This record gives sequence, structure tokens and C-alpha cells, in this order.
Amino acid sequence: MKKTLLALALSVATLAHADEGMWQPHQLPELEQLLKEKGLEIDAKSIAQLTAFPMNAVISLGGCTASFVSNQGLVLTNHHCAYGSIQHNSTADNNLLAKGFLAKNLAEELPAAPGAKIFVTQEVTNITAQINQELLPALKGKERFDKIEQLRKEQIAACETPGYRCDVYSFHGGLEYYLIKQMEIRDVRLVHAPASGVGKFGGDIDNWMWPRHTGDYSFYRAYVGKDGQPADFNADNIPFTPPSYLKVSAKPLKENDFVMVIGYPGRTNRYNTAAEVENQFTQVLPLSKTYREEAIEVIKQHSAEGSEARIKYESILASLANYAKNFEGMIASYQKGDTQQSKDQFDKALNLWIKSSPARQAKYAAAVRNLQQLLVEEQRNQQRDLILGYLSYGQLFSTAKRLYRLAHEQQKPDAEREIGYQDRDLERFAASMKRLSRSFDAKVEQELMLHFLQHYAKLPAEQRLKSLDGYFGIGSAELDVAALRGKLQALYQATTLADEVERLAWMGKSVEDFKASTDPLIQYAVAMYDTDIALENAEKEHKGKLAVARPVVMEAIIAFNKANGKAVYADANSTLRVTYGSIKGYQPKDAVSYQPFTTAAGILQKQTGIDPFDAPPAQVEALKKGDFGIYKDAVYNHLAVNFLSTVDTTGGNSGSPTLNGKAELVGLLFDGVIEGIIGNWDYDPATNRSIHVDSRYMLWQMEKVDGATNLLQEMTIVQE
Amino acid sequence: MKKTLLALALSVATLAHADEGMWQPHQLPELEQLLKEKGLEIDAKSIAQLTAFPMNAVISLGGCTASFVSNQGLVLTNHHCAYGSIQHNSTADNNLLAKGFLAKNLAEELPAAPGAKIFVTQEVTNITAQINQELLPALKGKERFDKIEQLRKEQIAACETPGYRCDVYSFHGGLEYYLIKQMEIRDVRLVHAPASGVGKFGGDIDNWMWPRHTGDYSFYRAYVGKDGQPADFNADNIPFTPPSYLKVSAKPLKENDFVMVIGYPGRTNRYNTAAEVENQFTQVLPLSKTYREEAIEVIKQHSAEGSEARIKYESILASLANYAKNFEGMIASYQKGDTQQSKDQFDKALNLWIKSSPARQAKYAAAVRNLQQLLVEEQRNQQRDLILGYLSYGQLFSTAKRLYRLAHEQQKPDAEREIGYQDRDLERFAASMKRLSRSFDAKVEQELMLHFLQHYAKLPAEQRLKSLDGYFGIGSAELDVAALRGKLQALYQATTLADEVERLAWMGKSVEDFKASTDPLIQYAVAMYDTDIALENAEKEHKGKLAVARPVVMEAIIAFNKANGKAVYADANSTLRVTYGSIKGYQPKDAVSYQPFTTAAGILQKQTGIDPFDAPPAQVEALKKGDFGIYKDAVYNHLAVNFLSTVDTTGGNSGSPTLNGKAELVGLLFDGVIEGIIGNWDYDPATNRSIHVDSRYMLWQMEKVDGATNLLQEMTIVQE
Repeated sequence: MKKTLLALALSVATLAHADEGMWQPHQLPELEQLLKEKGLEIDAKSIAQLTAFPMNAVISLGGCTASFVSNQGLVLTNHHCAYGSIQHNSTADNNLLAKGFLAKNLAEELPAAPGAKIFVTQEVTNITAQINQELLPALKGKERFDKIEQLRKEQIAACETPGYRCDVYSFHGGLEYYLIKQMEIRDVRLVHAPASGVGKFGGDIDNWMWPRHTGDYSFYRAYVGKDGQPADFNADNIPFTPPSYLKVSAKPLKENDFVMVIGYPGRTNRYNTAAEVENQFTQVLPLSKTYREEAIEVIKQHSAEGSEARIKYESILASLANYAKNFEGMIASYQKGDTQQSKDQFDKALNLWIKSSPARQAKYAAAVRNLQQLLVEEQRNQQRDLILGYLSYGQLFSTAKRLYRLAHEQQKPDAEREIGYQDRDLERFAASMKRLSRSFDAKVEQELMLHFLQHYAKLPAEQRLKSLDGYFGIGSAELDVAALRGKLQALYQATTLADEVERLAWMGKSVEDFKASTDPLIQYAVAMYDTDIALENAEKEHKGKLAVARPVVMEAIIAFNKANGKAVYADANSTLRVTYGSIKGYQPKDAVSYQPFTTAAGILQKQTGIDPFDAPPAQVEALKKGDFGIYKDAVYNHLAVNFLSTVDTTGGNSGSPTLNGKAELVGLLFDGVIEGIIGNWDYDPATNRSIHVDSRYMLWQMEKVDGATNLLQEMTIVQE
Repeated sequence: MKKTLLALALSVATLAHADEGMWQPHQLPELEQLLKEKGLEIDAKSIAQLTAFPMNAVISLGGCTASFVSNQGLVLTNHHCAYGSIQHNSTADNNLLAKGFLAKNLAEELPAAPGAKIFVTQEVTNITAQINQELLPALKGKERFDKIEQLRKEQIAACETPGYRCDVYSFHGGLEYYLIKQMEIRDVRLVHAPASGVGKFGGDIDNWMWPRHTGDYSFYRAYVGKDGQPADFNADNIPFTPPSYLKVSAKPLKENDFVMVIGYPGRTNRYNTAAEVENQFTQVLPLSKTYREEAIEVIKQHSAEGSEARIKYESILASLANYAKNFEGMIASYQKGDTQQSKDQFDKALNLWIKSSPARQAKYAAAVRNLQQLLVEEQRNQQRDLILGYLSYGQLFSTAKRLYRLAHEQQKPDAEREIGYQDRDLERFAASMKRLSRSFDAKVEQELMLHFLQHYAKLPAEQRLKSLDGYFGIGSAELDVAALRGKLQALYQATTLADEVERLAWMGKSVEDFKASTDPLIQYAVAMYDTDIALENAEKEHKGKLAVARPVVMEAIIAFNKANGKAVYADANSTLRVTYGSIKGYQPKDAVSYQPFTTAAGILQKQTGIDPFDAPPAQVEALKKGDFGIYKDAVYNHLAVNFLSTVDTTGGNSGSPTLNGKAELVGLLFDGVIEGIIGNWDYDPATNRSIHVDSRYMLWQMEKVDGATNLLQEMTIVQE
């Protein structure tokens, strides 16, 4: 099923079946014929218009996707996307996570978590030409990197107006640049969420798994000032009137039905070279998985279960475990599958195609060689850089560095400062200084530092950093672990940075103040500064070089694919995309078939009453009663809960509306399956499946269990 | 799908679909019409004849089933049934388990493990009348128990001749008795076994699991003396000429095909009362599961991984884990399913049926009440008896008891001694005394004893045993764990029973020698003796009472079922049975379908090269080449490996031939699926599935990988 030389020759047909592609809206008219055959009933050209239905009903929450589902700014997204806001409004006495929440009217709606925002894309402008005309070929390395950053900042500054955010996104590794303007709605309110026993049913255990039975949906409402413009939270604000909204389907849905997902996928790496893929899967991921597992072990070993220290690290542990599982799945998938083989074949075919024409040879060959060379260079210090990354679990050490960097950056005019250290960042900076207290335990940090310093000390001398060696007394002799443990204990005893007030006080101090300090962690920051800046500059130099080579290689790939009749989509980059496909099960392994729909019978099968299989009693009772009303699925003779489709999605797509051929909402995308976890690198039509909440399940739960009749009345529900 | 009141009324039809039943051969003519409809092509009456084909080709290995597959005594059974013999012939330099074994001719065949035997059933005689005419109604309790034992021994003694073993089996809880005579072949030789990477592929991880990819087959050969009679191993012995043998099929096999399994299922509890089922699943199994898990924890905690102590306990750990998993599966199945409900309904319907007729009332009602009462009594000391059972993990303590019991039994004439202490048992007794050294570590035993003594000490005083309390100083005060640990250490230091020679020496000593001993563990045995005998006599008393009530209740159940048109089979009791069904997948849970066949593609998917997923390189290469020859399955377009069927089997059926409608061997039964694990108590047609090796996989592996052409030539392989 994968891309082979033969398959490439047949790629249009392959593509038609594969449903691969995260398409930029403006590309859709190219696919019109195909989409029609698949089942699209509305005009493909209308999806190309950001300011027309249905595209202008789809919005970003920053990291998640959502959609308007009423003309009063009602927003539908995943439960896990609204989780922070539900948690924010929960107390021990009134745990909205546990029992769910329903505002029966506007007055009962609750403010979302601080920082919650809704972004409505307004304009997308191709500014490739503007960027390129400034990027003289002579500009190389760090100079080029800095120039690109400067141009980006200029474009953004010229675009932004109050209430609107602009950003420059590069596509195809810098071959194209787009300026995107979004309305930034900052008064967001929580309207409705089912109990976690519905919205998070299955929890981490079922994460990435099929069969799935999660009611992963929640409702927000967007509010604006009386002038219709974005405004801070205010009781006088009014619901935002969106330019359009999606109708919600209660109609039958079945295997092979056409579906389409609009959303903001975060990041894919579909066009990386075979060498990059090999390095990623045979070096980076196995090492990262090991380090994560070791970090988990260290944390667990030094924080008793249920202890205050352990509670502080629960969310870090969860994240470490989540990625360790993700990496494990990716590695397993790589080892079992033919990803490397297909990447090798693709690169070989591409190079043959380049070599077979002097013009192409002249245009692309050097860039291909250069990119290869740059990637080899990048890998030279890869293990060290990974280890340095894990040293940042010594949060007090990295905090000292950030504070000292701030003192340096504040010496510059605001516009010239690094991103993250500008005036507009300071509030968030201070918040992170405060937040640290909640996830920090000195003993655990010391042990994490000790653990990763031991890895660091084993690196060849030429890879190590003199200033870091000097600070911790690491040299050619074997590391004295007991002594280093003692030293770390002494450092944590001596520093005052564990104190929140002290940390915040350092935000106002000068470079000289830092240099004069006797706090050993501040001294660490001072000692490491020049080295860190040098590393950063080297990275910018490298990125500048990549910014020369990568776009040319991407140009070659695009030309090669087009020569083979294959339309090309850009790797995901958190911009608005459309993907289409159909409802379809899969075969995860020999002799096992996954059906495309789960039913509520599976909820009762999984139910233990204990988190994460703790469907609320009212739901269990309603399910046992079996009153599924108009929502009952005729094929399964039961209530459908989740379904699978072949659409091409990734992180960031969470909360995306799943639309039928009429652009009615039939579901909410919320996950992918573990067998397709390598999809960010290589789309396999046999196993790439997205998981959706069936809208009929959501409507049933709202009507029969949660009594959310006010919202059902507010939405437009289509039954035929 | 379960037995409800309504379903009972329709039971003949239900039964026809359910494929439930482990039938005694003589019952098959009753089922003739049904079997024909299902797909049986040979005469059902022929299966009723133990001395005719195919029944006389099916043999017992004691704990496993096997069959003759050539006229030269070639025997086919499971790899796991021949495991001990393969292990017995393995050395570090010549590991037959790892690399497999093939005798290219008779001379190369190896002796099976000591004690390996082949039993060929010769005669089955219903002796119910002979037993019953001696069992005066006046005989109750222990008297009745002893009388039954005496009658059994007499029947056996009268039946046995050299080379032939006889046994009396009770059916339907003592309602019927059969005397079974078997030829006991004791020169058994290992002929062929694939590598463990084939024969045990998937190991414990895949145990009870589907999809499965295990080539669980091996070949023995039965040898007899030149006179054709059983004989000890001798180079001059000749292959046994069986009365018949099975042809092996290389023909296509597909979903819904009729299959039939002949074998020796060990034990089921299909007719237990609702109260017994409830007690088993809500008390016994949860407690046993917990105790087993605790024992695992104690052993692991006190034997470092890879240590000598741990190695000694590996097989005990494996067994503890195996049953803990089994019990967990049973409990989960019980909790999720409707077993209890259907048992309750059945008992209710049975009681109504009894009550509705004065004659039935007179005949059955008292027995039903008595049985209920006896079961309540049985449960009174259930937890204590479980704990006492787990105390036997203190093997040195139980060894002391067994040695002292032997001294007592040896005071009686041989015929009066308890089974296990007769002269013919002494060789095995001595072997077990020797074997102990290999699975014993003093520290681990002390901790196991300490752990279960803590459970014991928490029992109410009236349940505890005075002699045990006295020996360990357990009383009403809270247990001093540290002191008891010290005491156990001192006991293990003082005893000489850890020494093999010392243990064996005690086998010859008198009761007086024991009483005079200063060895503290011998003193333990002496101190406990009277209590143990009293407990044993109480148990015999109880069994004697059950022997009055249970047969009458079973008679009622049979009459009730017959009144409902339902043929009744007896619970499994290690005697020869026939079960039929068809090849069929199942749905283990919502949205997941298991196909009825696995293919060799799954071997490559699971293959890691590391045990238990270590298919040998030669097989992997052959699979990748894809040369499946005549064995290729047309539906799957691949090599079928294992298949599922609805036949009704349990432990003891392992190695049973799976036959098609022509009684040709199409597979080997080797396991059941975890979803049907409750089947010993309640057959659920939706999930009760047996797992078989597909004969085509075996033949392919023998031909294309292992080059076992001599055996392929010896067998009769049918292709159409």
C-alpha cells in the first residue's frame, strides 16, 4: 500500500484511494472532480473561500480546533480542549470535571480558563514574493536567519490591529510564506461539558486506542464588546455573531460515507529525507524514549506514591509517559512497517529524476547535497543536545538561566529582543515563575539533574561544554556520583530561587546584579551564558543554511511529484487545512478486524465504575433502558458512539468538525489510532485512521441524560 | 444467548445451535440426525464404538490427549504435551527445545521423559448397579465414603492385568459409575518436535489469546514388546500396531466447516448450583487470586531477579501467575456476563418443576435442601482451608507432615493404606523428596510461611487450629511479626530436612522415631498429626453426605432437562468424550471481530526474534519466500496457522485430534480463548471458542522448513 517506484507512476490513482493530504483551502478546486466522486455535495470552490461557509465557521483555540454551531457564537470543541476551563471552574465542593456542567442560560455561563482564546481566520496572504525579494542569495547562515526573522516581524507589525493577531507561516520548509490574520476573541465562556465519565471515558488507557467510547465534546461561547470587536471579559459583553455556523446532523451515518475535516493540524514531517527519517527512528526516538522512561523511574523512586512531591510531578509524569508511549508506538510501527524502505525508494527515484536532466541537475543537485551535509552536521551533537534538553528537568537551573537572559535582553530596545523576552511576554514570564512552585520538589530535581549529568559526563570530551564541566567539576576522571549528589544537595540548600518571591525579584535586576550574586544557581546562569549564546548562534547559523537548501529540495520534490501526476500538499504547520476521506474500519493485525463504529454496548462492557471507566450512573441507566430515540443506528441496532475515518489529521486537529458531503457536522475529530501513529512521517492508507465522536451520541447524551435542551434548541439539528 | 426460562422451553433448538456438550461416545447415536445436519459424513454409530475407527485411534497421555497417525504407532499430540520429553533430552550443548528435533529413522528416536505413558482405552463398563447394590441407604457420611472407596478398589483390582490399568470414574456427581480399562504403553519415544519458536510461539503472553500463531504439535511413537504387550523401554521393543489411525488432511478448510474433537477433558462444573457458582466467583476465586498475587509478590521481594533463589522459584511463579490470570479472567467474565443470572433462573425453574408434582417433590426435594445445607457447611471454614492450602508453600513443613504420615500408613497392610502411601507409590514419593531441592529456598519459604501465617492469625479463634496456634504461639494478642520471622529463621536453621539425604532417611523411620526427634519440623508434623487426621475424617464425612445428596439432585436436573427436550451430558471427568461444532470467529468486544483463521503473516507481525516471539530464521525465510505449495489457503491467500471452533473443550483436551466430517485430522486442539474462560462453569455460545493448529500449517512446516519427509511419507495425507 506504500509508495514504491511503481506506485509513484500510478500516483494519481493511488492518491484517489489513499485520502492522504492536509490541503490548503486554496488547493481544493484542483481536487474538485475527486471530491465529487467521493461524495462532496457542496461546491468545492466554496471551501476555498475562507470568508464563506463552511470555512468561516471553523476556528482555532490555539492548539485545538473548534467550530461555531449557532448564530449566537456557540462553539463546539473537544472535552479535552476545554478541560482546563472545566478544571478552572471546579472546586472540591463543586467538581465540574466529575459531574459535568450545563449553563441553562447565558447568565449561568462561566469564564473560561485565563488565556483561553478563539481565533477566527480573516485573511491568508501569500507573501513569498515579498520575503524573497529581500533575501539576497548572498545572505547565508545566521545573517539569513536573522533577516528572515526581521522580515517576519515587519510583516506582523504592519498587519496587526487591536483585537487581531497576525503571524507569518512558512510552507514547504521556507519555499512559501503566508501572512495570516486572525480575529482574537478573548472573552470565552464555558457553556456545557458532560461529566468526565463521558467526556474522558477511557482516559489514558484508551488514548490512541480503538475501540473507543469517548464523548469528547464540550461547548464554549464567544463574547465580544457591544461594538462587535474583541474585548476583555466583561459582564456587558455580548455573544459574538459568527459569519456562519454549522448545522448538526442527527441523520444516519454509515460505513464508506464521505467525511471531511477542517482544522488546524500542528506538524507533520512527510517530506523529510530518508536519512532524516532513519536518524529520527533509529537514534532520536529510541534515545528519547529511554531518557523519558529513566526520568519517570527517577521521579517515582524519589517521590513516594501519594506524597506531596509525587503530586507535584503527576502532570510531568503523565506527559513523560504519554510521549514514551507515543515514541514506542512510532518505533514499533517503523520497525514493523516499510516506512524506511519507501523513503529510500522515494529519495532514489527523486535523485534519478534530477540526474536525468542537466537543467534539473543544475537547479537541484547542489541543494540536495547541501541538505544532506547539513543533516549530518546536525546529528553530530545530537545526543549531547538531547541530554542538555533533559537537564532542563532541573527547573531551578533553567529558571536561573531564563532570569539572567531576561536581564540581558532588557538592555536592548523591545523590538530587538528575542521572542519570549519582549515587554508583551513579561506577564506570561512572571506567571511561569509563579507556576514553578506547583511542580517543583528539590530532592526530585537533584536526582533528575544527577541522572542526566551522569549521561552527560559519559560524552566524549570534545562534545562536552567547558563551562558546564567546570561548574560541576566533570572531567576525564570517572564521575564521583556520591560527591556530585552532595554538591547538588548543597546547591539546592544554598540557592534562594526555590522561593517564589525571590524568583520574581530577579526579574527586575541588572546583568551586574547577577554577576555580583553569591547564589550558586545565579552563578550557574552567569557561568553558562556565553556558552548558551554561542550554541544558540550556531543553531541560527545552521538554520540559516537550511533556509537556503531546504526550499530548493522541496521545489525539486514538488516538481518531481507533479511530473508523476501527484498533487502536493504542504506539511502541517498549524494553519487551516482541509482533509477528506470516508468512514472505514481497519485490520490492526492478522485475524483482527476493527469495525468503523463503536456502540454504547461497549461502554457497559468497559464500565467498572472506577476512573477512567466511570460512566455516570444516569448514563448507565439510560443506556440500559435503551431509549435511543431518533439517534439509534439502524445497522448496529444500537447507539453509535465513536467512528473511524481515513481523513489525514494530526495533533492540533482536535475538536475539528467532521462534516458530511453537505457540510453538516456529523462528528468531532478527537484522536488517531496507535497503528497509524507513524502517520506524521508516513501516511499508510491501511492503518491511518482518525477517531471521531458521532454527533448522534452527543445529541443523545445531551437530550436523554444531561437535559441540555436549551442548546439543542439553539443549534440547528438536521434529521433528513 | 444464555439459558433463560424461555430458552429452556426452546432448548433442543438452542442446543442444536450452541454446540455445547462433551458427549460420552455411547450417547452419539442419540445425536445422529443433528450431527448429520451439521456435517458429519461417517456413521454416528461408529463413533459410539470404542473399539472401532476413529475412537480407537484416540489415546490419552494422562493429562493430555493424542492420536495415532500411522500404522506404526506414530502419535501426534501438542508440543506442550511433549514438552517434558523434549526438555528431558535437551542439554546446554544440544538444546532440542530451542532447535527442535527430528528422528530421521526409528534408531534416532529418543526415550520420552521418565513416566511418559500412552493409554489406549479398551473397555468402558457401566458398573452403577454393582456399586449401588452395595451402598445401603443406611450408609451415611464417612462410612459411605469409605464404602465407595473400598468398592472402587475392588473393581479396579478385579479388572487390572499386567500392562493394563483400570479406574472407576463417577459421572453426574456419583449418579453413575463406569469402570474403564486402558492399555498402558510405557515405552514412549520422542520422534519429532518443531523448535520452541514454532511449537511455543507466543508463549505465556499469547496463552488463552486470539489471534494465535502457535505450531503446537509434536510426535511420539508407542513401542511394545515383541509380544505386542506393554513393556519397559528396551532397544528390542517394536513399534505398536494401533487398531486404527487417523488420516491427516491437507485439504481446504474454511469458516463454518463441521469439526469434531475427541479427547479426555479434565473437569467442568456445569451443573453446580447457583449458590455454589456464587460462592466460587465472589469468594473462592477473588480470594485465591489475591493470595496467589501476594505469594508472587513475596517470592519476588525475597529473591533477586536472576539469583539462584529466583531460578528455583521460576516454575512456581509461572504457575502462580498462570492461575492468577486465569482466575482474573474468570472473575471478569462472571462480573460482565449473566452466568449468575442464568444459574439463578435455572435453579428457580428446577425448584418450581419439582414443587409442581407431589411425586417429584417426594423424590427430590429433600436432596435439594440437603445439598444446599452441605454447601453452606462447606463454606464455613473455606477461608481457613484456603489459607492452610497456601501454607503448603512452606514445602519443608508439608514434607515433614508427609514423612510422618508415611510412617503411620506403613503400620497398616498395604491395601488399607491411603492412596499415595502404598508400596507402589514409594518410588514416586522418594522422587518428590529429591525434587524438592530444586525448587526450595529457605529464606523465600520463611517469608511465604510468615505471610500466610499472618492471614491465618487474623482468623476468628474458633476457626483456628489449636495445635497450629500452639506451635507458632499464635493467640488473641496481635501477632508479633518480627518475633515470628525470627522463630521461622530459627526453625529453618535447626531442621535438617533441607538436606536431601536426611529427608530420604526419614522415609524408613517409625512413628516412635518421629516422636523422639528433636528436629523442630518433625516435631511440627507430630504436633499437627491428630488435627490433620481429624480434618481429613471430617472431609470424608462431608463427602459421604454429598455422595447421598448430589446424585439425587443430578437425577432431578437430568429429568428436568429431558422434560424440556434437552439431552444431558455429564460434567468432564477425564474420560473419553466427543464434542462437535464448526469453525467460527467471534466478537470479543464491541467493534472488534476476530476472524476464524490466523495466517502466517501474523507470525512475521509478532516476530521480534526474542522469546516467545522467536520464530526460527529458517521459518521466517520460508514465510517471506511465500512458497506455501498445496497448503496455501485460497480465502486468505496465505498460509493458515491456527483456527477457532465452537467445540466444547477444557484442560485435558490438549492434543486432541480435530476431525472433519470424514473423521480426517484437520487440526490439533491446544487451547481456549480467554473470553470463554468461564466455560467450565457456563458455556456461552457467543464466546466459547477452542483454538486449533491447522494441519496444513503443520504439514507445511514439516515439509518446507523441518524436512520431516520421513514422517510425511509414513502418514496418510489426504488432499481431496
